[in-house]
Amino acid sequence: MAPLTLDSLRPAVLKVQYAVRGELAIKAEEYRVKLKENPGQSGLPFNQVISSNIENPQQKGLDQPPITCVRQVAALMEYRELQHLAPNAFPKDVIARADELYEEIGSIGAYSHSQGVPLIRKSIADFISDRDGYPADPNHIYLTGGASAGVSLLISMLISEPMKSGVLIPILQYPLYTATLAQPSGEPLPYHLDESDDWNTDLATIEAAIKETRNRDVVPKALAIINPGNPTGAVLEEETQRKIVQLCKTYGLVLLADEVYQANIHRATKHFTSFKRIVREMKSDVALVSFHSISEGVRGGYFECTNIPEDVIAMMYKMVSVGLCPPLQGQIGVDCMVRPPKIGDPSYALWKSETDTIHAALAQRTHQMVTELNKMEGVTCVDSPGALYLYPKTELSKKAVEAARKAGKEPDAFYALALLDATGICVVPGSGFGQKEGEWHYRLTCLCPGVVKFHEEFSKKYPKE
Amino acid sequence: MAPLTLDSLRPAVLKVQYAVRGELAIKAEEYRVKLKENPGQSGLPFNQVISSNIENPQQKGLDQPPITCVRQVAALMEYRELQHLAPNAFPKDVIARADELYEEIGSIGAYSHSQGVPLIRKSIADFISDRDGYPADPNHIYLTGGASAGVSLLISMLISEPMKSGVLIPILQYPLYTATLAQPSGEPLPYHLDESDDWNTDLATIEAAIKETRNRDVVPKALAIINPGNPTGAVLEEETQRKIVQLCKTYGLVLLADEVYQANIHRATKHFTSFKRIVREMKSDVALVSFHSISEGVRGGYFECTNIPEDVIAMMYKMVSVGLCPPLQGQIGVDCMVRPPKIGDPSYALWKSETDTIHAALAQRTHQMVTELNKMEGVTCVDSPGALYLYPKTELSKKAVEAARKAGKEPDAFYALALLDATGICVVPGSGFGQKEGEWHYRLTCLCPGVVKFHEEFSKKYPKE
Ligand SMILES: Cc1ncc(COP(=O)(O)O)c(C=O)c1O
Ligand SMILES: Cc1ncc(COP(=O)(O)O)c(C=O)c1O
Repeated sequence: MAPLTLDSLRPAVLKVQYAVRGELAIKAEEYRVKLKENPGQSGLPFNQVISSNIENPQQKGLDQPPITCVRQVAALMEYRELQHLAPNAFPKDVIARADELYEEIGSIGAYSHSQGVPLIRKSIADFISDRDGYPADPNHIYLTGGASAGVSLLISMLISEPMKSGVLIPILQYPLYTATLAQPSGEPLPYHLDESDDWNTDLATIEAAIKETRNRDVVPKALAIINPGNPTGAVLEEETQRKIVQLCKTYGLVLLADEVYQANIHRATKHFTSFKRIVREMKSDVALVSFHSISEGVRGGYFECTNIPEDVIAMMYKMVSVGLCPPLQGQIGVDCMVRPPKIGDPSYALWKSETDTIHAALAQRTHQMVTELNKMEGVTCVDSPGALYLYPKTELSKKAVEAARKAGKEPDAFYALALLDATGICVVPGSGFGQKEGEWHYRLTCLCPGVVKFHEEFSKKYPKE
Repeated sequence: MAPLTLDSLRPAVLKVQYAVRGELAIKAEEYRVKLKENPGQSGLPFNQVISSNIENPQQKGLDQPPITCVRQVAALMEYRELQHLAPNAFPKDVIARADELYEEIGSIGAYSHSQGVPLIRKSIADFISDRDGYPADPNHIYLTGGASAGVSLLISMLISEPMKSGVLIPILQYPLYTATLAQPSGEPLPYHLDESDDWNTDLATIEAAIKETRNRDVVPKALAIINPGNPTGAVLEEETQRKIVQLCKTYGLVLLADEVYQANIHRATKHFTSFKRIVREMKSDVALVSFHSISEGVRGGYFECTNIPEDVIAMMYKMVSVGLCPPLQGQIGVDCMVRPPKIGDPSYALWKSETDTIHAALAQRTHQMVTELNKMEGVTCVDSPGALYLYPKTELSKKAVEAARKAGKEPDAFYALALLDATGICVVPGSGFGQKEGEWHYRLTCLCPGVVKFHEEFSKKYPKE
């Protein structure tokens, strides 16, 4: 008797769609192995795979340099003797920070407080109150192993029987939300963003999605807003944010504010305002959970609870305790993010120039790529003021669509596979994020000039008529 | 309208019991803050809180030293320049290992393969085949952020509607299992371990628990075995393991083998045999998932799938992809665990003496503490050959039980709270693990001589008659 078959798994697991790491990513990985095992003789028309499917700026090939002081603190926490063995390798403020963290945490080989190291939660609270002008309570902050972990926790707690619990999620959405909702009693309630208005969030669309649930056994429980957006990079206006809070009030929704890209805005006319600040300014009692993260392989992040009753916060504590504690290095990474070196600190100059360079490069890359894309026949792309992605819309000829259907693929996935096969560039087809009927997009994250030449050739192979 | 109340949460969340970090741990944390904020003037009868509730040997106060080479590799991965800045701080083999990992991974600031870095999975496969004498496939190995994450993933995938899915879990169990099962359609199926037989696993008891489900809408889907046990430290005999595999075959159960304490056996007459090896020796096709971890703040671990169909493994891949990737430092920690320095390597001597010292200290501490406990009036404690815990059984007088009931507490929790208040030692009451009616235990993890004096005083305060 073979007990474990697909049929014996939770049916919702089978339904999870996770395009970011789907068929394309798997094929890209195979190409990467092939290139590695047969250097120079892979038979592939490229010699490097570029993972433009995930925002992964420090990956090989892109090699965005790490921030030195962050790595120095981490190294000193790993191996305390270094301050004696290599006394000149570390600036004074880095040593002082590591000493302070060590004094509080002790060895990073030990489990910490399940909610995260108290000192680091205090640093986060200071960061939030400096950012917003309103106080933050360290006891309402949970460190996590990345924003993903926080979002999963919240969604899984909010899903309650016997009716289905709905969570409103933006389309284009980041697939984490639908994947986490794939439980017998969870239901994603999609609302479309408006491409013609730079991917803005439209209140009437959300309201329509809420009303649509009335004739079904679904209780809308939360509204997820990604600001700045992924993959759109759109940054919300404060006026829109206030309306969103009002709407949560009206319909009794918990507001899940995914703000992981808050520091990634690269257009001078746009700026980020947290939902925490909006809620406080409005003196609103809407329940809000705000997510932030260092979003990388170190895996660190936090969420802050605003207007959440203490007994519910205690339940969260119980649930995170089951997982023991978030990774310590991620917690230390968050600490460096929320209190970077200050003017006057020995590390300040290097930190400043490193972060400025990274931001400038991102802005420049994004701008250059948008310009390239918009020059292409049949391609339009909203210029992204935030986040790290572009999401061009691509017309596909009838011939291309037919060829795709024949191959049993979505047309945009067919296009993306052809791109990967020809150039080694791995993107995410728009069908993984949700898009309007008859439209095709893909998401890419970095400067990939190879896309232009590929598109020309693809258009020749599948001409309009 | 305040949308977020306890009533609006998933009811199963409210039911989760997680004693290891429950009331006692919260109180211990408060004492810790008090001691820190009022050094020397806390008014408490102790000046240090000892977290004997979690296995946390590197915590402050115990300060089990970290393994140097593991930390050196981690530091070099964090801050690559160190090999130039402090060329003499690192042995050659450490530098070579970091170079090899860097060559494969690139920056640890980047997300890795969702299943874990391929090179590290290869190292794990080698470790397993060396251990068992049977090959292991890197594609069937998943790196995780600790065993907890792996167990949660597996259990959540196995729970399927519309009937309840049961998972057989040992009582004394590690509370992770019940907590993860607290879903509308998951049901823990407890089976008792036999204290009179050194906490051995009794097949008839498991079979009885399976048969008991027949009249209810519960399908037993998996059997969790913790070997070596937590909190018992019991190590299974191979004969028992074979019977367990046979039982999984008979009832079509997935075997979840939690083997995180496999390296922690400190009695010469006992040794650990993996279920992987048993399954292979028996040429059995029973579906087996084996968990191992570095179990600490770094958060790293892995699970290996044996006899699991490829399409199910692909589903796991999809599900872990949603979480992006396990923490890189944890993955690197696992790499060091599965391929420690070899004889002849410059790091070998230090690594050997550090690990020997730790093991000897653990064995000695455990033995000394067992001896102390068994000398106490009304206390008996099985000597633990494995893992890191002791689980003494403590008689409580009628007076003590009455005082506890009056205070609205389980008698063992009442005892443990009194212990904390008097000594600063935080243990886990047996009611958090499951115990037989009318018996009281607690779990402690380290050498806490303070327990002896406390027990005397408690027994005086609540005398037998
Ligand atoms: C909008 C959004 N939320 C959450 C995440 C996940 O963040 P983390 O890596 O901290 O889990 C991402 C990652 O790309 C993201 O784009
Ligand atoms: C039996 C058992 N399984 C799993 C775990 C969790 O391990 P990890 O820290 O790797 O998540 C523990 C931790 O103490 C344990 O005792």
